[in-house]
Amino acid sequence: MATKVTPRSEDYARWYTDVVQMADLADYAPVKGCMVIKPHGYALWENIKAGLDRRFKATGHVNAYFPLFIPMSFLEKEAEHVKGFSPELAVVTYGGGKRLEEPLAVRPTSETIIGHMYAKWIQSYRDLPLLINQWCNVVRWEMRTRLFLRTTEFLWQEGHDAFATSEEAQANVLQMLDVYTEFAVEDAAIPVIAGRKSENEKFAGGVTSYTIEAMMGDCKALQSGTSHFLGQNFARAFDIKFLDENNELQYVWTTSWGVSTRMVGAVVMVHGDDQGLVLPPKLAPIQVVIVPIWKSDGQRAEVLEVVTRVEAALRDDVRVRVDDRDGYSPGWKFNEWEMRGVPLRIEIGPRDVEREQVTLARRDIPGREGKSTTPLEGLTGVVREMLATIQADLYRRALDFREAHTYDPGDYAEFQEAVSDGFACSWWCGDADCEAQIKEDTKATIRCIPLEQEPGKGKCIRCGKEASERAVFGRAY
Amino acid sequence: MATKVTPRSEDYARWYTDVVQMADLADYAPVKGCMVIKPHGYALWENIKAGLDRRFKATGHVNAYFPLFIPMSFLEKEAEHVKGFSPELAVVTYGGGKRLEEPLAVRPTSETIIGHMYAKWIQSYRDLPLLINQWCNVVRWEMRTRLFLRTTEFLWQEGHDAFATSEEAQANVLQMLDVYTEFAVEDAAIPVIAGRKSENEKFAGGVTSYTIEAMMGDCKALQSGTSHFLGQNFARAFDIKFLDENNELQYVWTTSWGVSTRMVGAVVMVHGDDQGLVLPPKLAPIQVVIVPIWKSDGQRAEVLEVVTRVEAALRDDVRVRVDDRDGYSPGWKFNEWEMRGVPLRIEIGPRDVEREQVTLARRDIPGREGKSTTPLEGLTGVVREMLATIQADLYRRALDFREAHTYDPGDYAEFQEAVSDGFACSWWCGDADCEAQIKEDTKATIRCIPLEQEPGKGKCIRCGKEASERAVFGRAY
Repeated sequence: MATKVTPRSEDYARWYTDVVQMADLADYAPVKGCMVIKPHGYALWENIKAGLDRRFKATGHVNAYFPLFIPMSFLEKEAEHVKGFSPELAVVTYGGGKRLEEPLAVRPTSETIIGHMYAKWIQSYRDLPLLINQWCNVVRWEMRTRLFLRTTEFLWQEGHDAFATSEEAQANVLQMLDVYTEFAVEDAAIPVIAGRKSENEKFAGGVTSYTIEAMMGDCKALQSGTSHFLGQNFARAFDIKFLDENNELQYVWTTSWGVSTRMVGAVVMVHGDDQGLVLPPKLAPIQVVIVPIWKSDGQRAEVLEVVTRVEAALRDDVRVRVDDRDGYSPGWKFNEWEMRGVPLRIEIGPRDVEREQVTLARRDIPGREGKSTTPLEGLTGVVREMLATIQADLYRRALDFREAHTYDPGDYAEFQEAVSDGFACSWWCGDADCEAQIKEDTKATIRCIPLEQEPGKGKCIRCGKEASERAVFGRAY
Repeated sequence: MATKVTPRSEDYARWYTDVVQMADLADYAPVKGCMVIKPHGYALWENIKAGLDRRFKATGHVNAYFPLFIPMSFLEKEAEHVKGFSPELAVVTYGGGKRLEEPLAVRPTSETIIGHMYAKWIQSYRDLPLLINQWCNVVRWEMRTRLFLRTTEFLWQEGHDAFATSEEAQANVLQMLDVYTEFAVEDAAIPVIAGRKSENEKFAGGVTSYTIEAMMGDCKALQSGTSHFLGQNFARAFDIKFLDENNELQYVWTTSWGVSTRMVGAVVMVHGDDQGLVLPPKLAPIQVVIVPIWKSDGQRAEVLEVVTRVEAALRDDVRVRVDDRDGYSPGWKFNEWEMRGVPLRIEIGPRDVEREQVTLARRDIPGREGKSTTPLEGLTGVVREMLATIQADLYRRALDFREAHTYDPGDYAEFQEAVSDGFACSWWCGDADCEAQIKEDTKATIRCIPLEQEPGKGKCIRCGKEASERAVFGRAY
């Protein structure tokens, strides 16, 4: 294993790929566009899943599993939907040694197959709301692979809810966006801007799409979760009807919402540094690593005795790992665990044993500045507090970074400069042509029209026409 | 929803399908051979996953995720493997709107793609053992669907381990079989026979396959988990080599082991009855349902007050649900929760409130016999104990049933009768022709050659030749 990642300042894209591979998060698969999620990356994903799943269940959702294969005719039932997804499909044409009568798409998303089942399951208003989430793999063909960010196959969750009224469906879309925001902020320590997508950027087949957008370390945006109001589009396409309380047949209103393994990429790019990965404690598979240090066999026994005690004391409160491997120097181990983003390192050497203390080293503050000593007595409390501090500091640092790179440009020239270095939050007239022209001029797209808007009106940053909303513009992954 | 399942005695296959559908475990998908796992079935699978995953991690395994798509050429690298799996493959021939140069198989199992990655990851003896598990979907083409038992797509876990020596690999295969046995017995309350598969029934490409076999309610066998010693077959096919401590290049020894959503089918068939599903408490998504009973509004408030108290008292210790829906009678609710297999029902009516007691009804003992009352005081302890008793009783009942239907026939005529009504545990000469003839005569196959053998020798039940092992024969799913 190489021991150094390419510095961010030199080549951000290479830095990202280096960190993902050297921190053992993922590797390239032999199939074009596909990745292998390695154990350390998967453990991170398991923690992301747990943080989301717990919140979904708290909102009354249950999990289920729908088929991987979708008949092509299903996709074609919603005109916009098939137009959006057909260029990205993987198609099964042979099964069990025979050519299939109808080709099967490998699911790119499951609105259609779930719509078909909901039409069967929903009869009356008593069956509503129906609140179901699915954890699964999906496939959208990609030629260029960017580990976690852009891969042919990825893992995600997709929620699919059905309601009796438009109002309930719209409230649900925003509720799930809130859940995503809460997860991003509290667990991933990633500040996000919650907002509406422009018509041009919305989900194929939906009515309104909402998103949470985060700023990466290179000032580009990453769409980190989406929540779609689908109106009655899929209900009409799949004939999902219910008898209302007046015994009248109505179409349901549906929503869908998803977060994927892209979130792993966001964690890497928001918090990582030139030593490698930096993980927020709440998501870190290993929160604390203990590295024993000795020079003689006598010291070894003495040190390991304390290490064992410390591990036992911490085990119930934090995810702790002891690295007592022989044949690796302490310095080598420090590097390895820094690369892997472990938030806190505890060093225990002969001098620590003698003084009944340990040395703590914070991953988020490299070098001497992040080091301190603390007595063995009361260590658990100190460690828990320090992990909470690291979690809060990572969020604060990411927010400061975003704020430092978010601009309110005075004119279009300033705007063009702004989006080359971050986000521009500017008045927009709402015109798709204006949006397209901005993209052509700057490569920046509307990341979202934030839910939080200041009152009043302004002039569109490009055309000068009257505008009633501000949009966040930026270059994106 | 129909309220009655077909009695087992009338038509066992229909009983099974009725229970799976009426208990809301699964439904048929629009794609031939595929199923939808409904929320109640998925919650059961989540508990199965948790019980297994915890045990895997305790044996030093970590999870990872490998690609869904496998190049056809990979499958062809191991001759027996491709012969075994190619009739069942689903094949992707189009991706991103273009015909693919090389068709991709949707994974039927992942030895090949994982072998390819291991060849890259394993360099030295220090990288061994490599102990990785994957939770995923796999596809094996089926024309006839049997929900959970035989479906084109199913969910499972597949462990793939690599070792420096044959001995370690063989020990691992048996260790994971033990893990499966422990899970089946302790969590699923299913007695299993652990043993070796015959050459004829072993994994395509492996050296030796082991299995746990369970007896279903119709006396047929269900293979419930398998663990394969793959020797160096896949190491040679994929060139997985390591430098040993003497700096010599060696092929690794590999194993693989899996349990699938079939386990849900086993739980249904081992414990279910003519009222529907019966779930072992350790796996039940809802362990206790509380049904309030009242006749007047005054009683309603009084009863609900106690219900709320009881739920709060139980919530930290058991998975409890209150069914206070209006518009459904208590009797209707009793039926519904019995159908769904909830192990314990707590009824609280005005008389219970008055006497400061609740009425308990055990799912596994239908009718009056399973009912009792207990004081509110100390209820949590009583409930916990009763759940443990139910868990133990279900296991005992299943074991008694299997023992009552397991025979030691004296001759081939008795043998033929025995396997029409259960398992025959008989001496077998080890000859594949004999095995084939038995299958032709009786439809029974060798389920396994049990690991536990009495010493000595006997005569083959069919041909009379000397035999050194007994085998368990039975008809199977």
